[in-house]
Amino acid sequence: MTSPSQIIEKKRDGHELKRDEIRDFIQGVTSGEVADYQASAFLMAVYFKGMTITETIALTEAMVESGERYDLSGVSGPKVDKHSTGGVGDKVSLILAPLAAACGLKVPMMSGRGLGHSGGTLDKLESITGFDVRLDRARFEHVLKTVGCAMIGQSASIVPADRKLYALRDVTGTVECIPLITASILSKKIAEGAQGLVLDVKVGSGAFMKSKDQARKLAKSCIAVSKKMGLKTRAVLTDMSQPLGCAVGNSLEVIESIEILRNSKASDSKGGAETCSSDLKELTIQLCAHMIELGGLTKNSVEARKLAHARLADGSAWKIFKQLVESQGGSADQIESPQSKLPKTTRTVTWKAKKRGYIARIETAEIGRILVELGGGRKRAEDAVDPRVGLVFHRKLGARVVSGDAIVTVHLPDKAPAGGTPEVLWGALEARFQAAIEISSSRKPVPRLIFEVIG
Amino acid sequence: MTSPSQIIEKKRDGHELKRDEIRDFIQGVTSGEVADYQASAFLMAVYFKGMTITETIALTEAMVESGERYDLSGVSGPKVDKHSTGGVGDKVSLILAPLAAACGLKVPMMSGRGLGHSGGTLDKLESITGFDVRLDRARFEHVLKTVGCAMIGQSASIVPADRKLYALRDVTGTVECIPLITASILSKKIAEGAQGLVLDVKVGSGAFMKSKDQARKLAKSCIAVSKKMGLKTRAVLTDMSQPLGCAVGNSLEVIESIEILRNSKASDSKGGAETCSSDLKELTIQLCAHMIELGGLTKNSVEARKLAHARLADGSAWKIFKQLVESQGGSADQIESPQSKLPKTTRTVTWKAKKRGYIARIETAEIGRILVELGGGRKRAEDAVDPRVGLVFHRKLGARVVSGDAIVTVHLPDKAPAGGTPEVLWGALEARFQAAIEISSSRKPVPRLIFEVIG
Repeated sequence: MTSPSQIIEKKRDGHELKRDEIRDFIQGVTSGEVADYQASAFLMAVYFKGMTITETIALTEAMVESGERYDLSGVSGPKVDKHSTGGVGDKVSLILAPLAAACGLKVPMMSGRGLGHSGGTLDKLESITGFDVRLDRARFEHVLKTVGCAMIGQSASIVPADRKLYALRDVTGTVECIPLITASILSKKIAEGAQGLVLDVKVGSGAFMKSKDQARKLAKSCIAVSKKMGLKTRAVLTDMSQPLGCAVGNSLEVIESIEILRNSKASDSKGGAETCSSDLKELTIQLCAHMIELGGLTKNSVEARKLAHARLADGSAWKIFKQLVESQGGSADQIESPQSKLPKTTRTVTWKAKKRGYIARIETAEIGRILVELGGGRKRAEDAVDPRVGLVFHRKLGARVVSGDAIVTVHLPDKAPAGGTPEVLWGALEARFQAAIEISSSRKPVPRLIFEVIG
Repeated sequence: MTSPSQIIEKKRDGHELKRDEIRDFIQGVTSGEVADYQASAFLMAVYFKGMTITETIALTEAMVESGERYDLSGVSGPKVDKHSTGGVGDKVSLILAPLAAACGLKVPMMSGRGLGHSGGTLDKLESITGFDVRLDRARFEHVLKTVGCAMIGQSASIVPADRKLYALRDVTGTVECIPLITASILSKKIAEGAQGLVLDVKVGSGAFMKSKDQARKLAKSCIAVSKKMGLKTRAVLTDMSQPLGCAVGNSLEVIESIEILRNSKASDSKGGAETCSSDLKELTIQLCAHMIELGGLTKNSVEARKLAHARLADGSAWKIFKQLVESQGGSADQIESPQSKLPKTTRTVTWKAKKRGYIARIETAEIGRILVELGGGRKRAEDAVDPRVGLVFHRKLGARVVSGDAIVTVHLPDKAPAGGTPEVLWGALEARFQAAIEISSSRKPVPRLIFEVIG
């Protein structure tokens, strides 16, 4: 058997690792026989030397094998999931899971928490009092069967190797690495029992992938590995050069999602003819159509889109969302009256345009970091989040503004964090916000919502 | 303050780290605030991206600062040390330290143990019953003052960061990295109080540096860093394409060293007009001459060489060696009658030439590994060593042999290690030995003992 240090050296020297070597190493990581310091040196060597598709397949397999693998053959219907590489204001899953279920798919969705500038579906769901994201396997399967979708966190028994490796990657500068991201995403989807996967690869100032080229590489890596592992995957490269929808902040994003599910007009949007939420609605329908196609429910993409539209419009997605919340212990009362009953702060402030022009650029990751400063996100995995705080955009890219026009309403926490008076702290935060928004005299074209579909 | 993961990322992305960043990181490694898995990811990033001389200086400084720094200003005379990058049969220090002291230098020598194919001075010294390599600071200084040299292991208080980093490097594929080697060597020499250093950089089949180019890079890195840190350093690139001297094995190497110190002819060498030990003697004198020059004891190199020769020939180096052994608690009786009283096995076997020709190549690292298999070296740092076992060469590179001529006498342990009968195990070991020795029909030139002197 090749020793851990020999495997590290082999990868360091740019050689292709054998399937057995990768399996042994990952087994060792899971059991603790491979020390954390060896795992992190290995991750850094992979960061520099990459992995072939054959190696990435072996890594994904080894990670799946590190824990339990759900067998969902007892659940009828095509099991199709969606995964987003993460962004700011990305609450698509909250609308998409019930919508796809309303279209006839089964959506076994396992999501994560927010970290750094990027939000997480679990944090959003937990804004709803009582919503339990930690279902055991039997309850997960029951909710999936009866509701059509279930939304949970990664259980301890699923891909334990990923939890260990991800925690290491997070603190050793080895997050941005395509084979490691590929194996991390796919191992969880395969272990949760999905048959199809729509991968939303975000690109732009609020995304981990800053360039289309990098996004395309990740998409192709995931599709190549999926193919060999019997998971139908399609990747959609989408824009993250501005927050998705109008709300950024956990409870605020649930409110926005419910408004879309209920087809009620987002009340505080003034982005021109379209509301600030229209990109969110459009992307959700597009992603749902791809899921429907992967699940083989319609003959072509036009019909898939039609079906998704219809199920959102006729209220069946909203009905399923309510069933989902109820099945997972969440408060029905809150979601029926989201604006009045979901957690909200009592203090808001408006940040306004300082000059006339067009919003030309939003430093979106900085918006995510401002949410973290408000207490609505995490610097470290162990931090608690305040579900109530956040920002609601009134105007986004391309909007015309004059000095004094509201750009966002900021939902502030009850008290400023230690280290300064509220005035000073919120003042400093507004300065960061203003620096993150560029207003130019000429209108620049707004990036397309969907750049490319691969697979 | 830059966080550990930011420092890792900065190095990963090929940026030059600031002095403060390196100092903070190394302080964190020493205190445990920087986790081992972060340290190893950092080491791998340095492996790939290197360090500038400015960074290497900062690293060396930070490592010196991680522990105690000996102040030897109370010891009169120039304090000059030697360091070898390690090889097979390299017992130079045992002869050189007393010889340099006999010439008028003070030699505060801090050495290491053998690991893998390469031997260590401490293991050799401990073949002498009672020899104590763990002197405290006061006793170290006392021996250095009264004898002129002292030979100890790295104390726990000296460069603790190096002990931690070295242990990590050993198991994470980050040993062969010039800035890390530079800082590891120099930090210890500076902390022990040396003013001058002769660096013996080994090149060839038994060395860590396989090419002259790599050896030259290490030499230049060490000299550039030393210069900035007030340590006069000269690097000598020397041959390690065959074992140095005739003996490979701890007690056997002490015996060979004593024979040279006493000017007695090595009894079992048959390498032609010269004995198999002549390279060892020659290299020791050359290195001593460089130490004398660095210490400023003579006007030029010719005089330095003459002085070294004279002090070896007139028995004063031998006298100092005896004082050293006595001062550090070793048995005077054993070193007076080394062949009969130093530890030796009762079982020997001779491995012979299988055909006629000239010894053209020796896979020297493999000779070191054969010693490990005999029990005379370590696979892991925690292994015990048998001081008695080893190999004594009768013929080395360039020697003419006919079939049946003895190449080495092997000193076997009392019982074969678990896993086979002695016949099978020693048979397998002889097969490895024969494969490591190439006998060719034409005589190939023997590499020069000293390739190059830098600095």
